[in-house]
This record gives sequence, structure tokens and C-alpha cells, in this order.
Amino acid sequence: MPTCIPSPIAWTPDHGIRILDQTLLPTEESYRDLETVDAVAEAIRMLRVRGAPLIGIAAAMGVVQAVGRRGSEEAGKNEIEAVQQACKVLAATRPTAVNLRWALERMRQRAELAAERGEALGLALIAEANAIWEEDRAMCRRIGQLGATLIPTGATVCTMCNAGALATGGIGTALAPVYTLHESGRAPHVVVPETRPLLQGSRLTAWELTQAGVGCTVIGDGMIASRLRLGDIACVIVGADRIAANGDVANKIGTYGLALAARAHGIPFYVAAPSSTLDLATPDGSRIPIEQRDASEVASWQGTRTAPAGVKVWNPAFDVTPAELITAIITDKGIFPPAQVSRLPLTAHAE
Amino acid sequence: MPTCIPSPIAWTPDHGIRILDQTLLPTEESYRDLETVDAVAEAIRMLRVRGAPLIGIAAAMGVVQAVGRRGSEEAGKNEIEAVQQACKVLAATRPTAVNLRWALERMRQRAELAAERGEALGLALIAEANAIWEEDRAMCRRIGQLGATLIPTGATVCTMCNAGALATGGIGTALAPVYTLHESGRAPHVVVPETRPLLQGSRLTAWELTQAGVGCTVIGDGMIASRLRLGDIACVIVGADRIAANGDVANKIGTYGLALAARAHGIPFYVAAPSSTLDLATPDGSRIPIEQRDASEVASWQGTRTAPAGVKVWNPAFDVTPAELITAIITDKGIFPPAQVSRLPLTAHAE
Repeated sequence: MPTCIPSPIAWTPDHGIRILDQTLLPTEESYRDLETVDAVAEAIRMLRVRGAPLIGIAAAMGVVQAVGRRGSEEAGKNEIEAVQQACKVLAATRPTAVNLRWALERMRQRAELAAERGEALGLALIAEANAIWEEDRAMCRRIGQLGATLIPTGATVCTMCNAGALATGGIGTALAPVYTLHESGRAPHVVVPETRPLLQGSRLTAWELTQAGVGCTVIGDGMIASRLRLGDIACVIVGADRIAANGDVANKIGTYGLALAARAHGIPFYVAAPSSTLDLATPDGSRIPIEQRDASEVASWQGTRTAPAGVKVWNPAFDVTPAELITAIITDKGIFPPAQVSRLPLTAHAE
Repeated sequence: MPTCIPSPIAWTPDHGIRILDQTLLPTEESYRDLETVDAVAEAIRMLRVRGAPLIGIAAAMGVVQAVGRRGSEEAGKNEIEAVQQACKVLAATRPTAVNLRWALERMRQRAELAAERGEALGLALIAEANAIWEEDRAMCRRIGQLGATLIPTGATVCTMCNAGALATGGIGTALAPVYTLHESGRAPHVVVPETRPLLQGSRLTAWELTQAGVGCTVIGDGMIASRLRLGDIACVIVGADRIAANGDVANKIGTYGLALAARAHGIPFYVAAPSSTLDLATPDGSRIPIEQRDASEVASWQGTRTAPAGVKVWNPAFDVTPAELITAIITDKGIFPPAQVSRLPLTAHAE
């Protein structure tokens, strides 16, 4: 029985990117090396690497692929243009997660600084990507410590999609409190909606929890309200792809319905996310761009049609949960009522 | 472009049962002949034939298979025992739908009457099964007429699972108002949640609507709340597997979450069902037995695992929507507020 928390990303020896191809889980644990910006963009677009924080890290590591990875090149005009072009390509992969743009902006600025200073560009970009990764790992740990205080011993919790180790550079966001409690032998049982259409719940969350030795139960998305009615779920914890200034939260499609069911049964509904997920430039949830994905994700599975040929499909990847349905937002900088989340960047010591 | 409403059941020339195997839709339109009680029981258990009203009809036709189908036998002791045994086997196939037990009880009583009267048992049972079928067809038509008055012209409606022609002996229950309006060229657009785990929404409802020429859009079950929030859905109409005396309704898993989302957005929530679905012996929803189905339905698809091996699964086939979330129950005997549905059998002229 393996009991380790899996890691979805790593550097290859010469600073290519080695990813766990998440589209093949849970039946196949297969790793793939990415050595060009286009390969990284394809992996993000195809959800081989996914999860808002991890997309930011992968994109940052992807920018490194735009320049010589030996790290010795100076940051000339051509190299800076290559970095800018890489940022453009990578930013266009997915529209909803704010971490992606945030990480790419850091990489772009670091490249310009390297040019000003005459530093070796590759080394500077590798260091910046590592900093983004390490900060994410630390944020996950902090979210885990804070969130763990909200979960009673022996509890059952419910999550949605995958906001675990496979979605971040560390122990996850929504699952970080679960793993933190697991270290002291007090992991809650986790109810995992399968999360159609791409089944990140059953394929990924159930897989990483099983790898880590945490007990879980998979349910269909339509079973959520009935499961919450049973009365034994202490709280819901989900991740976030973007948090608007008013506390509205974009997360995997299905989260909003889960929040309505939690409200109907008086169950606390927590969002766990690194502070980089907050987007003060977006005043409320109605302004968050929602990625619409291909009809085939809903209309077929494993190459077999699940809906008649030619039928219309609506397939948004995310939904918006209004702030009033959220009990609290757990960040690396403290636990906030959603209405006060816009004070987050100014309140680093709020915890 | 075909525009006919498909029929899921028929007699073969010598009164075997020809069913459309609903497990193979939408990729294959395949018919299967059933000529023994065990074959009918297997088809019901495996959902080759499904939908509360259709299960009742199929079971009634299944009882015919227990006796000589030429119809000339007299109802002796052996034949009556064979009918009773068939009713027992067929009643045990699925626990939630009340129509199944109701139809079998009619067949059992008809067999006893045939014995008393010295009638040819097979002919009597065929006639009774045909009566159950024809009554269901008429009930569907009446539900369609009544329900059509609740749907504005040009509306979009949302359903769940399949409560259409494939679930009944006629034009369906929840979809009957849709087809009734379709006849006058005023069919609403239908939003169809796929209805995991067995995808009766995308595989069956979208297929029969497409066959009939009614426009529809398939969504994932987790998309329901977001879709209802868009503001263009006039009402929700679902079927029922059992209606308790207090108006609580058991229907396909996911219905309760849909009802919560409808309430949150002020959208009328209608249940459409033949009066035979009402079970006065069940005081409220908590007493309705909920069928738990095999874990493999959630943990795999088309033979490929969708969850890691050995993971726990919770897979109830139905949930209970409390009466207070239901705007009205549309029956063949009138439209009732759920709290008054127990008056239904006494108020045949309520409409």
C-alpha cells in the first residue's frame, strides 16, 4: 500500500519539464518530457497538466524552454522577444485561472530585469520559476495548517474536482488541510464527486488520496445533494481558479450547485486558494471569463459517443459561486470572510 | 431527418416481448426478443428496459411468459403458481418504482379471476397487460395535455434522466408536454442533464428528442445550477418513480439537486407522473426504499476504470425531492400541489 503524496511536475536534468500526464490517470501513471514552449502549451490546453496553481508553475517553467536551457545566454533583444512570445502563447492556453497570467507576468518582468542587469537569462528564469514553485509549496503548507483548524477530528469532508497535490506544486489547496491532518493520523474521510466531464474527481483526487493512504468515497455529481443530506459531512472544501474582489469564486463547474446544496443543509462551505488566486481587477464573478470547452468532452467518452451525433452541448469548464454562499476563504495569508477577501494583500498578518 | 417518437416495447407475433435494448443507445438501435420470465427480469435489472411506467408494462407482459403464450390454457393450480412465481421474480428486480408492484398485483389478481371463471389464462393475461399498456398510453397523453398548459410558447425547459417515450408505453411523462406542444409546432427547447452514472439523459432523452425532431442541449450534471442561472429556463419537468402520500417524490439521482437549484433561481419545478406512481402506503420520502446499484457503474465506463481500483463508491439510483421544493405534480387526473397529491385517487375530476 503506497502512502506518498504524488508530485505532478519536475525538472529534467537539463531543465526540460517532466510532467505526470494527468489525462491517463487512474489507469496509467505515465510521465512526459516537455522541451518546447509549444509542448508546454499543448500540455496545459489538453489538461495533461492542470489545476490553477500548477498551471502557473508549469507556464513559468515553460518560459524557460523559450531560451537556451543551459542558462548561460545573455538577455539580448532576441531572447527577450522569445520570452515575450512564449508568455503570449502560454497565456492563451486557458482563460479562467488568474495564476497563469500572474506567473507569466513575473517571468516577463524577471527577464527584463535580467536584461537590464546583463544577467544570464536562462539562470534567472530558472530561479524565478523555482521561486514561484517554492512559494506555491509554502502556500499549500500554510493553507493546510490554517484549514486543518476548521475540520473536526474524525470528520467527513466533501470536495469537488481536484485541488490537491496534482493541482499544485505542493500538497494542494482544498486537500492541503486533509494531508496536514493525515500527517498526525487524523485525516478526514473525503467524499469526492467524480466531476464530469473530465472526471478530475474520480480519476485524480481519488487516485492521489489513495496513493497517500487517505480514505475516500467517489460519488456521481448528481448525488451531491443527497450525500450532503445524510448529515455526516462536517464541511465542504473546494479550490478556486479565480477569486473576484467581492469574494465571488470561479471554480470547476459543479461547485456552484455543491454550494447551493451545502447552504440547504447548513454545511460550512470553504474555498482554499493561494493569495495569487485573488484578482482585484475583477470586481465580481460576472466579469470572470468562463472557458467553454469542446462538445466532445460531454458527448463522448473513451471514443464512444454518449449522446446522439450532432446534438447540441453546453460545456463550460467553470462556474461562479457567489460570495454569500461561501463561509470563508482559506488562504496562505489567513482565513477571510469572502466579503473581506479584497483586504487580503494588505493584511499579510491577518492570521 | 427522422421525426417519429420511438417505441421501446412491442409484442412479437406469438406474444413474446420485443424491446429496444436501451443500454446500447445512442450508438446502436438494437431490438431483443424476450420469451421467458427470467429474460424479462434480466432486461429490467440490467436497464435494457427502464423507466417506472415502462417497467410496469414490461413486467405485466413478462408475466404472460410464465404461461403458454398461445393463450388457450386454462388457469389450473400449476398455472396460477407459475404466475405467482413470475410476479415474485419480477417484483424483485428493482425496489424503488411503485408501478412495478402495482402492475404485477393487477396481473396476479387477473390470473386468480381467470381461475375462478375458468377462462383461458394466457388470453386473460395478454388482455390485462394490454390494458395496463393502453392505460399508460392514455395517461401519457393526458399528462401531455395538462402539462402543455404550463409551458409558455418558445420556452426552454429542463428535465432530468429520461421520462420520455423510452420510459413509458406512450409519449412519456415529463416529456409528454414537450411532445404535445411539438405536434402544434411549438415544442420548447429541452436542456438535458446527462444523468450519470448511466447517462439516461444524454444517451436516451437526447436520442428520442432528436428522433422526434425536438431541439435539445446536453449538459453535464454539475452544470445544472449554472445553466439555470442563465435565466432563460421557464420550468423544470421531471418524472417520478414513487410519490409518497405527503408529496415527496423519488426520482433519478440528481433530481433533488436540480430542485434545489430551481428553488434558488425561482424556477417552477414540476413532477409529471401517472397516478399509479402515487403510493399512499408510503407516508413520506424517508420511507421510500432507495436502490443502491453496483460500484462499477460509477468507477468505470465502457470497461475502462474511471476511479482507482478498490476505491469506495456510493451509488444510489434515486433521490427524494421534498414536497416543499415541488411547484406542482402533473398527473393524468389533474395538476396538484404536492401537499394535496394524496387526494388524487378521490378526485378524478380535479382538473
